[in-house]
Amino acid sequence: MGEFDLIAKYFAHAGVKRADTTLSVGDDGAVLQVRDGYDLVVTTDTMVCGTHFFPDVDPRALGHKLVTVNISDLAAMGAEPSWLSLAITLPALDEAWLAEFAAGLHETADYYNCQLVGGDTTRGPLSLTMMAKGQVPRGKAITRSGAKVGDYVYVTGTLGDAALGLRLVQGVHEVSKKHQGHLLQRFHYPAARVALGQALRHTASSAMDISDGLAGDLPHILKRSGVGAYIDVNRLPLSQALKDSCEPALALQLALSGGEDYELLFTVPENRRGSLDVLLSPYGVPITCIGRITGVAGKLELKAGEQPFTYQHQGFQHF
Amino acid sequence: MGEFDLIAKYFAHAGVKRADTTLSVGDDGAVLQVRDGYDLVVTTDTMVCGTHFFPDVDPRALGHKLVTVNISDLAAMGAEPSWLSLAITLPALDEAWLAEFAAGLHETADYYNCQLVGGDTTRGPLSLTMMAKGQVPRGKAITRSGAKVGDYVYVTGTLGDAALGLRLVQGVHEVSKKHQGHLLQRFHYPAARVALGQALRHTASSAMDISDGLAGDLPHILKRSGVGAYIDVNRLPLSQALKDSCEPALALQLALSGGEDYELLFTVPENRRGSLDVLLSPYGVPITCIGRITGVAGKLELKAGEQPFTYQHQGFQHF
Repeated sequence: MGEFDLIAKYFAHAGVKRADTTLSVGDDGAVLQVRDGYDLVVTTDTMVCGTHFFPDVDPRALGHKLVTVNISDLAAMGAEPSWLSLAITLPALDEAWLAEFAAGLHETADYYNCQLVGGDTTRGPLSLTMMAKGQVPRGKAITRSGAKVGDYVYVTGTLGDAALGLRLVQGVHEVSKKHQGHLLQRFHYPAARVALGQALRHTASSAMDISDGLAGDLPHILKRSGVGAYIDVNRLPLSQALKDSCEPALALQLALSGGEDYELLFTVPENRRGSLDVLLSPYGVPITCIGRITGVAGKLELKAGEQPFTYQHQGFQHF
Repeated sequence: MGEFDLIAKYFAHAGVKRADTTLSVGDDGAVLQVRDGYDLVVTTDTMVCGTHFFPDVDPRALGHKLVTVNISDLAAMGAEPSWLSLAITLPALDEAWLAEFAAGLHETADYYNCQLVGGDTTRGPLSLTMMAKGQVPRGKAITRSGAKVGDYVYVTGTLGDAALGLRLVQGVHEVSKKHQGHLLQRFHYPAARVALGQALRHTASSAMDISDGLAGDLPHILKRSGVGAYIDVNRLPLSQALKDSCEPALALQLALSGGEDYELLFTVPENRRGSLDVLLSPYGVPITCIGRITGVAGKLELKAGEQPFTYQHQGFQHF
């Protein structure tokens, strides 16, 4: 089976067809109609076997996660997801694996009304690169650089669940049967906060998604915005599953440094704070105020209530 | 050194800055201003170590080629190159290698006025995925599906030089000293026919770039357009270097099946043919009429003058 038959069989004809896709898979490039008066937002994420996922990962979950991590970046910028490109490198042609992977990818892309419009198929060590393209009204993208002193710091959902789910998969932690499903779901099938991200376009002063853990990610906003922040660890939103399954210290560690939650982290100026609950209540995703932006550039201060909280972030170092 | 320092050092601050790039490397995504009334054209190419290049490849040439193969796809669609994203997977941090690779990449991107606006850096087996984004007036992209019976088939430049260059690199062919430079240049530093591709927007009925060899690539136009073609192999444009260095049979084989020339292959209706030489002469790239489109759907007929020419294409099978 040649490259072209492979593409045609699993990727070219499945999934949603957007009216603004002039030309999809099968030519030198895709031709896409970005709406007049809108900016294009582009993100890239690579997942390498052995680095980002286990060789025996469920290919359907992998297809889901690859789409989600990319769309989560678009969500964090307030963009509407529109199109995906996939570069897939395979060591050999395993049709059963590919069918499941493609199914997971298309299910998730369809859910976000996103069309796969092209890519490349190559032979080599298993690796997946996705680029997602979204649209946002011109000048309305939410960046990491707009946080101001006095802004309040918020997160969506709960933190640390995906990291505990990973520990279950690795077999290094046991939890009661009733919580297993939730935690594994959070690790294998994270959600991208797309609608909420778009709702924040006129409210948030800065935003990003949490992929490497709150304590590793918030400093990016601080650096780009030239500000500091304090976070009250007592306010971190923890799920019942996490609280029931871990000692408090571990629960905090997973919430601060556990990656792959794909919740949104954002800041809101005081004068827009009042409208926030009203604005966001239709989306069914809880939001929690966990701290505030300070003027001490680059400094992330952790507190437990009024007490200082000492913590050493152990993030994922790529090299 | 963390991922972010690495990106910042080699990729974030180098290269051309386009005025239509609102936000580049450093946020969740790039924010780009596609011109109102224009379509976005997107292409993807992956190069895997061991499959697409040798481990000891000159990293500067590799950076050049990665950009060129992507921009060549944009050229084939008549698009103006605008932005690049890079997903780079590295087994370890080799700063000398990375500096040379980045230099080759930026030199070439600058030449085409294309800005690197984001990507991802990961650890794993050496692999490079680039996505290029270009712009074309709405509805004016040249596709593979517009060839009509009676159209003339053209190619730019000369064919087979890169394939002979590869044989030099592999040490399986010797050529005279005076031709070595040209052939190695064609293999390591191919050119994308960007200006010429844009000039063809109103003239060509179909186009693609030749990356896998004429005999392997032309069938894609035939399939997408629902037509056939005959090609006169006596008319294939061969460089003096190729003719001096090979038996005629090998020269034809390299011209028909040798990959990586990145010349344009395009079709032109009879009634637009007259303007072609005038239109294209400012670009300094020769074009050659090599055949004609026929009504026998999917059939590629090779002739040598008036005689049938029997030939078995040996293309690159990815699996």
